[in-house]
Amino acid sequence: MKTVSENRCFGGTQGVYVHSSEATGTDMTFALFHPGIPGAPVLWYLSGLTCTHENAMTKAGLQAWAAEAGVAVVFPDTSPRGEDVPDGDDFDMGQGAGFYVDAIQGEWAKHFHMETYVLSDLPETLFAAFDLDEDRQSITGHSMGGHGALTLALRHPGRFRSVSAFAPICNPSQSDWGKTQLAAYTGDAAAHDATVLLRGGADLPPCLIDTGTSDQFYDKLGTDAFAAALAERRTPAQLRLQKGYDHSYFFVSTFAPEHVAFHAEWLM
Amino acid sequence: MKTVSENRCFGGTQGVYVHSSEATGTDMTFALFHPGIPGAPVLWYLSGLTCTHENAMTKAGLQAWAAEAGVAVVFPDTSPRGEDVPDGDDFDMGQGAGFYVDAIQGEWAKHFHMETYVLSDLPETLFAAFDLDEDRQSITGHSMGGHGALTLALRHPGRFRSVSAFAPICNPSQSDWGKTQLAAYTGDAAAHDATVLLRGGADLPPCLIDTGTSDQFYDKLGTDAFAAALAERRTPAQLRLQKGYDHSYFFVSTFAPEHVAFHAEWLM
Repeated sequence: MKTVSENRCFGGTQGVYVHSSEATGTDMTFALFHPGIPGAPVLWYLSGLTCTHENAMTKAGLQAWAAEAGVAVVFPDTSPRGEDVPDGDDFDMGQGAGFYVDAIQGEWAKHFHMETYVLSDLPETLFAAFDLDEDRQSITGHSMGGHGALTLALRHPGRFRSVSAFAPICNPSQSDWGKTQLAAYTGDAAAHDATVLLRGGADLPPCLIDTGTSDQFYDKLGTDAFAAALAERRTPAQLRLQKGYDHSYFFVSTFAPEHVAFHAEWLM
Repeated sequence: MKTVSENRCFGGTQGVYVHSSEATGTDMTFALFHPGIPGAPVLWYLSGLTCTHENAMTKAGLQAWAAEAGVAVVFPDTSPRGEDVPDGDDFDMGQGAGFYVDAIQGEWAKHFHMETYVLSDLPETLFAAFDLDEDRQSITGHSMGGHGALTLALRHPGRFRSVSAFAPICNPSQSDWGKTQLAAYTGDAAAHDATVLLRGGADLPPCLIDTGTSDQFYDKLGTDAFAAALAERRTPAQLRLQKGYDHSYFFVSTFAPEHVAFHAEWLM
């Protein structure tokens, strides 16, 4: 692992690091906010389409609340990258659009293993290099990263103590943001669809979701289907529709304090 | 005035607007966070070298604290811009490097009137278009913008109720960041040097300054000269050297809550 940068921030350290990943077969960059408390619990923040490790690190304002709560935040990249890594024609496929799944098909099968990367590869590096508590992990994310947070929590029971999401893609097998991509990567979009997983009986850890009523991508999110599935399953969860908020980091940063506080309750 | 974008943020509105400026003879872009409280007081945030209205708006995390305090924040651009506007060979001169002065020399004299822009032109547009309290204004800034905040407050007594700065350039007439630029723009670097102004008897409103001990540009800031001048003049002020912090927005965002709270005391 190589240190790209470390900046003091809210009494802790905001770092950016590069490590070599077996899962993706590439170097991967990630960011970590460490609050400076030995053995801090870990909140994973999965980013959305087009993002790298950097967007949320600089724009979501999470460090203020994580420092207050004594929680570390990890910001993985959203896909493998590099000249040898295939890419899509548009922003919603390929580099920057890993959808947090392990691709097993076509040109994607070699590098696009983001589920394994986030669940195994990066944790191995992370917990070896930093003084963090592997037994206390929660997960959140925005948009495609919200899809990642929900589906990883649903597919891996017990792994995360709590899950939250900002404007998540909830029903990707029915959305332009997910249907084609998940089918191309895995051949089975439903296996990575939070609504389908929940309807199918998967257990959801304690859950908080915020989505803006003025989200410009509202129709791609499938919030209605997930809301119905939550109700069908009588799942303890909070789904909040926030008046006038859109899909931007101004929305994410506004509700970041409550998401961090929510996870902190389960992580302490 | 044209609206470029408006995003709901912490219960208020983060907007970006373009207006035509007489002072600069160009269109100018600025950002405003309005907390949604009619007649809110105004905190000016002046940005540093290379920045536009956007950097602090997306990275400094000020909206959270401004919303809490009921204060609006204005983010002006750092210079006129456009194809017809002259530029320097490097980032520290010309576009992105207005130094908050009115140029009267050479190629700069036509457009580079940032002191008038920030003090007259933009306020005229701002207070006509938004429900804000013109009688309650304070000012802050980062790096070159910290220089701007300090010198505008010192040069225009009574205009701002309080002033603060993050890693300000304090003694530009002795610094690579200021000496050449201010001489080229105005012919008189000392007239826009916070340390010289303070030593010369100018009144400083209530003042808070934070600078990191690991600031990578520490030698360009002249903090020592300003500290000595503050002490010489027995000026009530807080100058805090913050252990391990650098020049980045991670530093700014860390101390943003205390700066906003400081100004809010004087603005309420």
